[in-house]
Amino acid sequence: MKTDIAIAQANQAAPIETIAAKLGLTAAEIEPYGHDKAKLPGATLAKLRQRPLGKLVLVTSINPTPAGEGKSTVTVGLADALNQSHHSAVIALREPSLGPVMGMKGGATGGGYAQVVPMADINLHFTGDMHALTAANNTLAALIDNHLHQGNQLNLDPKRIRWPRALDINDRALRETIIGLGKPANGQMRSASFQITVASEMMAILCLAHDLTDLKKRLNQILIGYTYQRQPVFVADLGVAGALTVLLKDALWPNLVQTLEQTPAIIHGGPFANIAHGCNSILATEAALHAGEYAITEAGFGADLGAEKFLDIVTPQLPKAPDVIVVVATIRALKYNGGQPLADLDHENLAALRQGYQNLQRHLRNMQRYQIPVVASINQFATDTSAELTLLQDLIAADHVDSALTSVFADGGKGGLALADLVVTAAQRPATYQRLYQDSADVVTKLTTIAQKIYGAAAVELTPTAQRQLRQLRKFGWENLPVCIAKTQYSFSDDPKALGAPSGFTLTIRELIPKLGAGFIVAMAGNILTMPGLPAHPAAEKIDIDADGQITGLS
Amino acid sequence: MKTDIAIAQANQAAPIETIAAKLGLTAAEIEPYGHDKAKLPGATLAKLRQRPLGKLVLVTSINPTPAGEGKSTVTVGLADALNQSHHSAVIALREPSLGPVMGMKGGATGGGYAQVVPMADINLHFTGDMHALTAANNTLAALIDNHLHQGNQLNLDPKRIRWPRALDINDRALRETIIGLGKPANGQMRSASFQITVASEMMAILCLAHDLTDLKKRLNQILIGYTYQRQPVFVADLGVAGALTVLLKDALWPNLVQTLEQTPAIIHGGPFANIAHGCNSILATEAALHAGEYAITEAGFGADLGAEKFLDIVTPQLPKAPDVIVVVATIRALKYNGGQPLADLDHENLAALRQGYQNLQRHLRNMQRYQIPVVASINQFATDTSAELTLLQDLIAADHVDSALTSVFADGGKGGLALADLVVTAAQRPATYQRLYQDSADVVTKLTTIAQKIYGAAAVELTPTAQRQLRQLRKFGWENLPVCIAKTQYSFSDDPKALGAPSGFTLTIRELIPKLGAGFIVAMAGNILTMPGLPAHPAAEKIDIDADGQITGLS
Repeated sequence: MKTDIAIAQANQAAPIETIAAKLGLTAAEIEPYGHDKAKLPGATLAKLRQRPLGKLVLVTSINPTPAGEGKSTVTVGLADALNQSHHSAVIALREPSLGPVMGMKGGATGGGYAQVVPMADINLHFTGDMHALTAANNTLAALIDNHLHQGNQLNLDPKRIRWPRALDINDRALRETIIGLGKPANGQMRSASFQITVASEMMAILCLAHDLTDLKKRLNQILIGYTYQRQPVFVADLGVAGALTVLLKDALWPNLVQTLEQTPAIIHGGPFANIAHGCNSILATEAALHAGEYAITEAGFGADLGAEKFLDIVTPQLPKAPDVIVVVATIRALKYNGGQPLADLDHENLAALRQGYQNLQRHLRNMQRYQIPVVASINQFATDTSAELTLLQDLIAADHVDSALTSVFADGGKGGLALADLVVTAAQRPATYQRLYQDSADVVTKLTTIAQKIYGAAAVELTPTAQRQLRQLRKFGWENLPVCIAKTQYSFSDDPKALGAPSGFTLTIRELIPKLGAGFIVAMAGNILTMPGLPAHPAAEKIDIDADGQITGLS
Repeated sequence: MKTDIAIAQANQAAPIETIAAKLGLTAAEIEPYGHDKAKLPGATLAKLRQRPLGKLVLVTSINPTPAGEGKSTVTVGLADALNQSHHSAVIALREPSLGPVMGMKGGATGGGYAQVVPMADINLHFTGDMHALTAANNTLAALIDNHLHQGNQLNLDPKRIRWPRALDINDRALRETIIGLGKPANGQMRSASFQITVASEMMAILCLAHDLTDLKKRLNQILIGYTYQRQPVFVADLGVAGALTVLLKDALWPNLVQTLEQTPAIIHGGPFANIAHGCNSILATEAALHAGEYAITEAGFGADLGAEKFLDIVTPQLPKAPDVIVVVATIRALKYNGGQPLADLDHENLAALRQGYQNLQRHLRNMQRYQIPVVASINQFATDTSAELTLLQDLIAADHVDSALTSVFADGGKGGLALADLVVTAAQRPATYQRLYQDSADVVTKLTTIAQKIYGAAAVELTPTAQRQLRQLRKFGWENLPVCIAKTQYSFSDDPKALGAPSGFTLTIRELIPKLGAGFIVAMAGNILTMPGLPAHPAAEKIDIDADGQITGLS
């Protein structure tokens, strides 16, 4: 089979105006970026908002493994399949981060014959949203350090500044730095850190903002640090939220592209789900909901991270909750969860599959807690045996969940027709969305609820640092916000090696970080890096381009 | 009079396809970015290259003063005037840097009724070129630090790494930093610095590259540092030039916009002229030359910096040398050069004007050395008296240079008609471009030639550091490159306070830095900051946007 980029390059994309027309939009109502990408500006979103809401389908998965699950691929293939079945479907997806593209993970535009295009552009600079976020993030950082340098009228304690700089690059050397060295004109010396842009509060804010006014309000609310008297200082105190909003004025609007089968795809915002909330922007999901009969969206990593956050943090900001949840699993990944070594995954192993099924089972049950219909997608690999497929189908059926085989990587939308049928049927069933917790609960209750009901933990423990931060949250009245747990994506627990369905463990919360602009409290469960590193042989070593602009090595 | 942004917002721009049609290009031959911006991709440049070359007009000025000169305004107004006079003119300009937009300087899109639009977009993210450069710059930096971390196979000396990180932000706190602090996984600890993106070698490379192949070649040639054995290490040794070229694949192509009078403007690349070579990309100038009867381009700061570099570094890369050079001056700025205090510039002062004229005089004579016809633009202010205007016209005439009054800020192209007439006449005169020096000369000879013939210096002195660097340049055979002197823009000399036409001074060169990708040697004359700072009250405090996206406070 051809590489992803070869398939994408061989594809003849429709002009973006043709895709816009599928949404009932004229060429004047979109802002083109090249001939195959466009933004949907505010006035166009307002127009879409006049239309009725479609059905919302959330695609999530088991915990990710090195074996691969294909969640984005299923998201794309499912939408293509729905369109093949004469149900108009529109995709809402996250934007890829450039750091992993140059590092190890590769892009995030699906794969095989279930891709969004232009694949290379989307994985590179796309329409510049990430860069605008980086610029806004670092302009604010420069304004803060300049404030210190110019007399520090706000009395900010340089040791209590809580606004890191950001780059959309995997750069381990910037995790901990000292800045402001040298002459007095070089500003105040202090320790400072850099995050990857997708982990930044700016990204979370962009993904949760409803319009320019809400965006500016959230930017004003950003906590930038504390005074020497330990009083909080906000962007509003610096008076620069207007300028930051100006920097994000285009990035706020969702981007329109298409799949290989010309299904409209709205791609916008891309926080990681292990260190952030992991879902595309609410404006993208909302636009997709108004633009088609089905809006298909995806949450990052496993359902313990992305879907939980989609349902408890994002959904309250959306016009409606999901009508169906699709949980993606593969035989290979379940066998890996069941203890079969990576190198042996090509061999049939029913015992490992049965053991590893516990991971999928818990995710299915977790999703059912939200009282939304759940279906399973068994994403096929050529190495899956018929005995394995039968076993897995039986196991899922025993849990009273419908499942469908998908082969969208190899077959495109055709490989998702059975899943599409299941989804259409499930979407007729009643969905009575029930949130896991109320924002008004205290923070420990909220954390314990997620840890026990979703992760299978016995208890939650706060380190002394987290306890101190909790007292501070209470003191300043910031407790009534949803919690965003930063946790390893590889396990239900905070131990990345605990595969399957661990239980009885204690989840340790090391830090509680108020993100007042985003409107949630980040709880760090484990040592989660907010700035990834590059591997010994980065993908950048293999990426190339010829004299005619033909790219190779991008995946 | 209305503010620049109010004028720009009130303007009804033509669809960018209409502007492209003026260049004989179809909608399919441009890559739109919104409805009023576009890129001219490689295939389109190749098509333009089939056409004959127009006349090239270089706009430069006296040394900048706080009084204002209006060079970009004259550049825009002159092109508008030529079009009003039925000579097709196309502008080639630099892209603004975001750092100064948020800081003090404001944008760089002209002013009043001589502006390029969309003013706000061009001053903000435009088509993302700056951000692509920042990303490529910092991806390379991360790859270098990752190489150290992953075993340092190339034996790079961390103390001799010569590749700074970059942000398009005025951030003084990043001038000197220590990175790689903390745990072993955070990489190698070392001192490191950040530049503003427009000062980076990436920017210079983009502006001097002829096509994707040349771009990749230049990226391969970048010197990233030295081994412990003091041998040079290049990007080619890291094997990542392909990936960096991919990151710049769109940024390489020039951007098309328009003036308020719908004159086509090709805006691309934006190195500062005090710390870099200060001219828009050669691809932009070349496209303008093939697209119109007249290509009007501008070089940064005064003619001692921008024009010298345009003529000695850039012109050898262009298909032709300038046919006319326009030197812009204002009565106010010349009086300031003649010693009149800033607060008193509204008052007539013929003696100060006569004294300050020496600055313009030397710039005019310098430009004549290149054997290209030179004309002067007296850019009018309301406070200029008729006695002052008469005196200045007489002084210029006594130097056998033609001059014209311009009032393009207030009147648009109509205010540049007299200058347009002069330019058309001058363009008929023979231009026998004579470069100031040959690349094959030794570095000290090249520096001395510029310092004596352009700056009026008596001699050039190299600090011990520069002398050591000179020996290194010789040892590695890098001496046969043009020199790019980094010097204050406020004076012919290296003393920013020496206004007028200082002479007899010694120019001190503190450092000689090989930029092997750009293909020149940077000579640091004075302590030139490559990362600006923000003022006590940054422009960001005044910039705002309302619920409908209307921006205020951008200038």
